[in-house]
Amino acid sequence: KTLHTCWLTFNFVSLKKARTMPDLLINTDVCKNNIKRMVEKARKNEVQFRPHFKTHQSVLIGKWFRDAGVDKIAVSSVEMARYFQSDDWEDICIAIPVDVSKLSIYNALTVSVLGLFVESFEVIELLGENLTRVADIYIKTDTGYHRSGVEYSDDKLIHEIIAGIERYPHLHFKGFASHFGHTYHVDGIDEIEEIYKKETSYLIDLRNQYIKQYPGCIVSVGDTPSCAGMYDFGAVDEIRPGNFVFYDLMQYKLGVCCLNDIAVAMKCSIIGKNENLQQLVLHGGAVHFSKESIQLKGKTVYGIPVMKTNSGWKKISEDAVLFSLSQEHGLVSVDRSFIGERGYGEDIYILPVHSCLTANLMKYYRTFEGKIISTFNTIENEGEA
Amino acid sequence: KTLHTCWLTFNFVSLKKARTMPDLLINTDVCKNNIKRMVEKARKNEVQFRPHFKTHQSVLIGKWFRDAGVDKIAVSSVEMARYFQSDDWEDICIAIPVDVSKLSIYNALTVSVLGLFVESFEVIELLGENLTRVADIYIKTDTGYHRSGVEYSDDKLIHEIIAGIERYPHLHFKGFASHFGHTYHVDGIDEIEEIYKKETSYLIDLRNQYIKQYPGCIVSVGDTPSCAGMYDFGAVDEIRPGNFVFYDLMQYKLGVCCLNDIAVAMKCSIIGKNENLQQLVLHGGAVHFSKESIQLKGKTVYGIPVMKTNSGWKKISEDAVLFSLSQEHGLVSVDRSFIGERGYGEDIYILPVHSCLTANLMKYYRTFEGKIISTFNTIENEGEA
Repeated sequence: KTLHTCWLTFNFVSLKKARTMPDLLINTDVCKNNIKRMVEKARKNEVQFRPHFKTHQSVLIGKWFRDAGVDKIAVSSVEMARYFQSDDWEDICIAIPVDVSKLSIYNALTVSVLGLFVESFEVIELLGENLTRVADIYIKTDTGYHRSGVEYSDDKLIHEIIAGIERYPHLHFKGFASHFGHTYHVDGIDEIEEIYKKETSYLIDLRNQYIKQYPGCIVSVGDTPSCAGMYDFGAVDEIRPGNFVFYDLMQYKLGVCCLNDIAVAMKCSIIGKNENLQQLVLHGGAVHFSKESIQLKGKTVYGIPVMKTNSGWKKISEDAVLFSLSQEHGLVSVDRSFIGERGYGEDIYILPVHSCLTANLMKYYRTFEGKIISTFNTIENEGEA
Repeated sequence: KTLHTCWLTFNFVSLKKARTMPDLLINTDVCKNNIKRMVEKARKNEVQFRPHFKTHQSVLIGKWFRDAGVDKIAVSSVEMARYFQSDDWEDICIAIPVDVSKLSIYNALTVSVLGLFVESFEVIELLGENLTRVADIYIKTDTGYHRSGVEYSDDKLIHEIIAGIERYPHLHFKGFASHFGHTYHVDGIDEIEEIYKKETSYLIDLRNQYIKQYPGCIVSVGDTPSCAGMYDFGAVDEIRPGNFVFYDLMQYKLGVCCLNDIAVAMKCSIIGKNENLQQLVLHGGAVHFSKESIQLKGKTVYGIPVMKTNSGWKKISEDAVLFSLSQEHGLVSVDRSFIGERGYGEDIYILPVHSCLTANLMKYYRTFEGKIISTFNTIENEGEA
């Protein structure tokens, strides 16, 4: 009932008829439980919880966070900030280095609290001169992932950036932010813990160096492997995980979630059966799943076929995997007897490798009750609207 | 002028303000030239040309094909058939095995000529009993790619399917269709030619076996590596390539197009610079490019940065590549001096690895004159509409 009301209210784009591409199904109970557990973990650790909304990209799912007590979020583009602002989020951090070619869009944001990531003195000056609103500046700090940010040991540049912020009254130094994206590529929780402890220690040292001068100065981190895998967040002030809202096979492989924590599964029709090759052809390809893969038992895997039981997901067999994707076709390896029992047009559920990319491609979710949950990317299907 | 008019008329979803995500730019001259060359090649070879529209997914680009004399197309889903039907395409082949769970949508199609791919007797019976309109049935034939289709040597099953079609007056046996998707994974034109010659010969043998009984029976093939790489299509009746409309780095690596044949490039802002690591951070990630990659000089590559010159694309250097993608960040390896000359917010053009997947993610194109070309996937950006 509540869900239905929300759907009517917040489904910005009306999907008047059901779409019929492969459907991305969401188990709302699992999703809400994932939210609840991370909220509680943050509370227990006494860290601020600023979930990253780039995974679900949905106003409705955002409300489930709000219902769980969340009042601040992270997003991955200025456009996404504007989307969530439209649902009255008042504290949004755009957790990607500022794109100074879009300052007019940043300037038009009306949120009370706007967080920005900066990694250079040059951008501070550009913001100082051209940003027409107040912003909290996080120094994006590279502690080992080597994607973006100031090298944590570059005292001179860090000092220069903070001194730069100081010159502009509308810019406030907020603290040090980092993303340990390399936790996605390790073998398990021990290695995640090693990265987390080592790299948060660099950030904590930096904070401690500046906290007397800037009493509100914080350390903000936030990959899902760390936040889901660790029990103790140490002296960190804020976490910004995103993927945990759905989890996926990457997190499952890392050992930071179990199969039944995965909240989304793709429903695909069987369009081909081949008992000789022991494979099924599904309508479900790279434009639905993304080409993200993991290695399992030496094989490249794009998804795992499961059945839905009362207690959760059950693999259809230990070896069945989605092993090949072209644009709209997916190939699943299954044994002959399983194929023999299936009919053309029957549905197969596939757990995705990387739920963020799959959700982005699919553009909306369907609940097991058949309701549509729209997102930032929801399209109006021209033939149906 | 013409383009502008088309844009106003056929841009189903109004993008009232310019979107500001990374932009997928299209060189309309290059695209139209790609179309023209393939039309001429088909004509010279006396084969029917049924371009696959899954790459561009755009009604406007479809019109450029129509202007070049094309009157039949292939698409990759029943929803896409409906989309192009809305622009009066009257001969559409849905070049993926029929999804019998969606027969109501197939039944609602009003095109004069509807082609369907079938690989089993079971589906013929389902179509016979439940399809309420006339359809041409292509037997999807597997000649070596092993994705879907009847094994070409399975005379018994092929005969059974054709006999099945015969029982239903609204089903017409059209011929044998195959897709040589393995041409994407070879080392060059010689190997493409080897696959093409061997596997078309199987199909031609099949056709010759049935042509007396079914005089209209055809052989339809259509991967871009074959159609772009081969001069002589042999005794094939119909080609269905799609990717050639834009080409991309995969085709470039295969040697079937040159750099200046690539019609699309992503325009991304610089959001990070790191002279020590010799890399730029772009706003442009897996949700824009897709995670499709190629191997170049032993490295995984997601794109190549180029400059636009009067004569086409010019690599910014021999070694500069887009070597890492996360959800919205892309990392480009470039030398120190190039970084020093760039400012934050400046644009970098990147040629995509797989234009079909990139175009699908980006959902629209922008011409170099600034016009938007909408697609099947174009979204209404909620903050701007």
